[in-house]
Amino acid sequence: MKIKLLSFAVILGMVSASSVAQEFVLIDNEQGINVGNWSISDKDVQAKGKSFKVENTVLKGGKQEGSQVITISSDNFSINLSPTRGMGILSAQGDGIRLGWDSPVNEVVNPANINLESRGGIGWLDGFNEMMVRCGFEWTGHAVAADGMMYTLHGRAGNTPVSKLIVEIDEQAPYTITVKGLIKENTFKNSHLETWAGLSYVPGEQSFTVHDVVTNKGDYTRDYQIIYHSNYGQPILQEGAKFVAPVKEISPFNDYAKQGLKDWQTYLGPTKGFDEMVFNIYPYADAQGQTQVMLANKAGDKGAGIAFNVQELPVLSLWKNTDTLKQGYVTGLEPGTSFAYPVTIEREQKRVRQLAPGQSATFTLVYSLLANKQSVDAYQNHIKAIQGDRKTQVVNKPMAYE
Amino acid sequence: MKIKLLSFAVILGMVSASSVAQEFVLIDNEQGINVGNWSISDKDVQAKGKSFKVENTVLKGGKQEGSQVITISSDNFSINLSPTRGMGILSAQGDGIRLGWDSPVNEVVNPANINLESRGGIGWLDGFNEMMVRCGFEWTGHAVAADGMMYTLHGRAGNTPVSKLIVEIDEQAPYTITVKGLIKENTFKNSHLETWAGLSYVPGEQSFTVHDVVTNKGDYTRDYQIIYHSNYGQPILQEGAKFVAPVKEISPFNDYAKQGLKDWQTYLGPTKGFDEMVFNIYPYADAQGQTQVMLANKAGDKGAGIAFNVQELPVLSLWKNTDTLKQGYVTGLEPGTSFAYPVTIEREQKRVRQLAPGQSATFTLVYSLLANKQSVDAYQNHIKAIQGDRKTQVVNKPMAYE
Amino acid sequence: MKIKLLSFAVILGMVSASSVAQEFVLIDNEQGINVGNWSISDKDVQAKGKSFKVENTVLKGGKQEGSQVITISSDNFSINLSPTRGMGILSAQGDGIRLGWDSPVNEVVNPANINLESRGGIGWLDGFNEMMVRCGFEWTGHAVAADGMMYTLHGRAGNTPVSKLIVEIDEQAPYTITVKGLIKENTFKNSHLETWAGLSYVPGEQSFTVHDVVTNKGDYTRDYQIIYHSNYGQPILQEGAKFVAPVKEISPFNDYAKQGLKDWQTYLGPTKGFDEMVFNIYPYADAQGQTQVMLANKAGDKGAGIAFNVQELPVLSLWKNTDTLKQGYVTGLEPGTSFAYPVTIEREQKRVRQLAPGQSATFTLVYSLLANKQSVDAYQNHIKAIQGDRKTQVVNKPMAYE
Repeated sequence: MKIKLLSFAVILGMVSASSVAQEFVLIDNEQGINVGNWSISDKDVQAKGKSFKVENTVLKGGKQEGSQVITISSDNFSINLSPTRGMGILSAQGDGIRLGWDSPVNEVVNPANINLESRGGIGWLDGFNEMMVRCGFEWTGHAVAADGMMYTLHGRAGNTPVSKLIVEIDEQAPYTITVKGLIKENTFKNSHLETWAGLSYVPGEQSFTVHDVVTNKGDYTRDYQIIYHSNYGQPILQEGAKFVAPVKEISPFNDYAKQGLKDWQTYLGPTKGFDEMVFNIYPYADAQGQTQVMLANKAGDKGAGIAFNVQELPVLSLWKNTDTLKQGYVTGLEPGTSFAYPVTIEREQKRVRQLAPGQSATFTLVYSLLANKQSVDAYQNHIKAIQGDRKTQVVNKPMAYE
Repeated sequence: MKIKLLSFAVILGMVSASSVAQEFVLIDNEQGINVGNWSISDKDVQAKGKSFKVENTVLKGGKQEGSQVITISSDNFSINLSPTRGMGILSAQGDGIRLGWDSPVNEVVNPANINLESRGGIGWLDGFNEMMVRCGFEWTGHAVAADGMMYTLHGRAGNTPVSKLIVEIDEQAPYTITVKGLIKENTFKNSHLETWAGLSYVPGEQSFTVHDVVTNKGDYTRDYQIIYHSNYGQPILQEGAKFVAPVKEISPFNDYAKQGLKDWQTYLGPTKGFDEMVFNIYPYADAQGQTQVMLANKAGDKGAGIAFNVQELPVLSLWKNTDTLKQGYVTGLEPGTSFAYPVTIEREQKRVRQLAPGQSATFTLVYSLLANKQSVDAYQNHIKAIQGDRKTQVVNKPMAYE
Repeated sequence: MKIKLLSFAVILGMVSASSVAQEFVLIDNEQGINVGNWSISDKDVQAKGKSFKVENTVLKGGKQEGSQVITISSDNFSINLSPTRGMGILSAQGDGIRLGWDSPVNEVVNPANINLESRGGIGWLDGFNEMMVRCGFEWTGHAVAADGMMYTLHGRAGNTPVSKLIVEIDEQAPYTITVKGLIKENTFKNSHLETWAGLSYVPGEQSFTVHDVVTNKGDYTRDYQIIYHSNYGQPILQEGAKFVAPVKEISPFNDYAKQGLKDWQTYLGPTKGFDEMVFNIYPYADAQGQTQVMLANKAGDKGAGIAFNVQELPVLSLWKNTDTLKQGYVTGLEPGTSFAYPVTIEREQKRVRQLAPGQSATFTLVYSLLANKQSVDAYQNHIKAIQGDRKTQVVNKPMAYE
């Protein structure tokens, strides 16, 4: 099966910056390729490092019919992502610890079955269950009717099936695996943003890198926004779990969140009626702009970290949705160019960025599973080093009202 | 073909209340199963009763591409239903008599091609042609903009492809065939209703049972509504056809229907410009809450009956759409928890029900083809027995105005 | 491959008015046929004229997954059209000259992935890249909220997958190839227009005929509108390119277009910030109502012509979208029953036509590639002959304001 399917893929030797990689084209709209079920392992490419497997599966049933999921796995770690849903990362897991959460939406919903305009522009919630979903790029944030249209919740990228999908495997140690998909947000007269959304993984590691390049393919300068909506539930999230970050400024998203300012660094257990509290954070970074944030469990022996650069992603939304388990017990650590306000507010407050014709913006985030106390401590110490003795300003007033 | 496809299905021995059944899984989102074209007959399962066949077909062409239809047939009766369209029943037929009607929508439209929000929230009409379509469960009734969203006409269930689809065949006489599908109305923060929508049929009979179980899978009490929109056209519907029911109270849905109160028990032939008249009915029932209603042709030798329980389904909408044949000459006998008013009115008038966390509601309806005078008379006599000497109150004023 | 696929097609001998044709059914919703990848050539049907090939391809990847494209080709000409997108013509090409244009929408977007209601009713722009797209038939023109609904930009036909698709090849010289698809715009209580949308091509020619029959299948008189939105970019469109037509009256679509009245017969090169100017034209025709219009390049040795009948299509919209290449450098020559104003204005100004129950309207347009100076001159001379010495009235005031 494997070998037969490989014969459909176009196999090209590709020279990258540092090494030669084997390239497998799983989807290509120009060449008429959509391979479907497919897999490859270290043995197929004669890699001599850690064992690994990359598998593509076409899902069946209900609203997920036809959705594809890629699973990248090695001995002690695996990652699931969906090319059909804008390369969103469904979950990752290692050492029995899951990065991700349980949404009432328990299918990988095919965007053909989603109407982003429904329920007053929040149809995005019909598909939301990812560990990481790209909210962008043409716009992001809460839904708002403006400019004669509805800016639907969190934009279109997360519900766009990729037009190209490529798996690359480096031919030299450490045999890095890269999966990248092309998201086209193309609308005549309105948008011409194309994004190569990528994920790289070194077999054996318990972290992976998200690397995106969004390009304005048009002849006019265009706005863009992005929020990397990164979400964690059990087992890391629990009563007494901690949010750790080098924080320059934190403020409540709205009046409801004001009461959460007193203990923004810790979490409640599943709490009926809690709904959600959101905090707007400006993180500190090191001299190169690098920073990192972390969620750790109460005991401090399980955690999830995200490292990013504040020049690329200057703000962080902290979304505490510690409602009941079935309602969705989850927190979002969301590096972005924007907060989650509607685009109208983000424009007013000058957080909407622009791309000149042909210009690209890149975003690199490293997601880590911290599977033991040592890893959690090390990650936390690095965060503390970034903070140093710099103060955290706690602002009591929301910066905007929807 | 048959045998090969069966090998894809997970065959489990299942113990039900009264018998052992063979179970065939045609769709399972968790196991990655969607069998597609498939069939089974009494010979395949060594049933010694009446002959039967159950067949699943994937449709092609136009807006129905990919829709599936299950046909259950025995010597003198057959039923068509679509798992892709929320287990809606397309038609049934026996002795040359069709239960169903002719809609201008003459395809089994795949919900991926329907926008429920279109035309101001009545996109549901782009797919409506069923003999019975479930209008619910999160909401039902006429479209209304409220709560910052559009409650689209008759809800989402009828345009939801099932996530699981199971065919069960009892291993003992009378070898009852059950087809059941799982409808998920799951939206983060909004809805977590899951419904097993089932249909049971005993080979050789000219009736079948609809049995649904809707469960609130969430942690919050949620509203639900359901209307079993059951629709009949020719040959039973004709000039002089009769609606027979044990009626406690009848009132016009709106001012236009007032003029129809004088002859609500009979039907016009196809009538240009008639459009539709709707009547709100509270039926009488027996001591156990059981009741039944019937449409009979003029001669009283062809009919369609629906039996249900008023504890489950306390109200009945009578929809007289005796417009021209091509416009859709059809009447709806619609047992429900609600009338067809918008959810806002149904809420005000306290007809919207609720399910506590984990709670289920069940609905059982028996649909009968009455293929001769004897059957029609017997069904009518039973209705008269339920009515007894109890009065019918005819109310002239609509209970609400949209 | 070819032979095997042919076995799926129902091969019928069909008697047409003038000749016997072989008929190949590629899609039929009633028979459950959707052949998919398929091809046939002159050799397969033992045609003794010019060589030709007709090929149907199922596209892959991104938002075009599952879209089908038919390519008709002979030695020096080829045509691409998409049955999935309402028989829209993607492009045609001959002698190195392309009829068509480059849209930022660079996929053949499957309508299942389009929401016509998005962006305030202009979701149509998410798929627009055709050389010719049918804008109709229930309504056309700019989006407008009226009658409690949104009349979305340019109607539904162009985003409707055909329910039937037939390829016919005449058995006698010149072995005319006809491809026709059935577009159903059926909505209960609202619309019952069905259109056979056809294209005929004689192998070896550099022109083709569009022939559509739209029928009101319902029992009520219904409005209809159609604009044949025919679009050309490079290489014919260029700075100094000319629009040539027998013009009785021309007026600006809106105030912005007023400034373009002085040089409406010529084009600018790609011009940043130009956006679009539209002109409303009433063409002159010959005694039989036949007329023709043309776009020619500056040198007058490349052109594209459209011939039609003003009894069928009395008006022409001239759409000059000479913006930058990447924004979409394109002009539309758009014969229609209506101008591009919203249906509300078209109704007021009495340009919306009606079909009685069962009535059909037919539209015939001949599209020509003019590949050299001789062809361009001949086409232009014919246009001049139609104009004769009749005056062109240039009206300065738009006939309506949106």
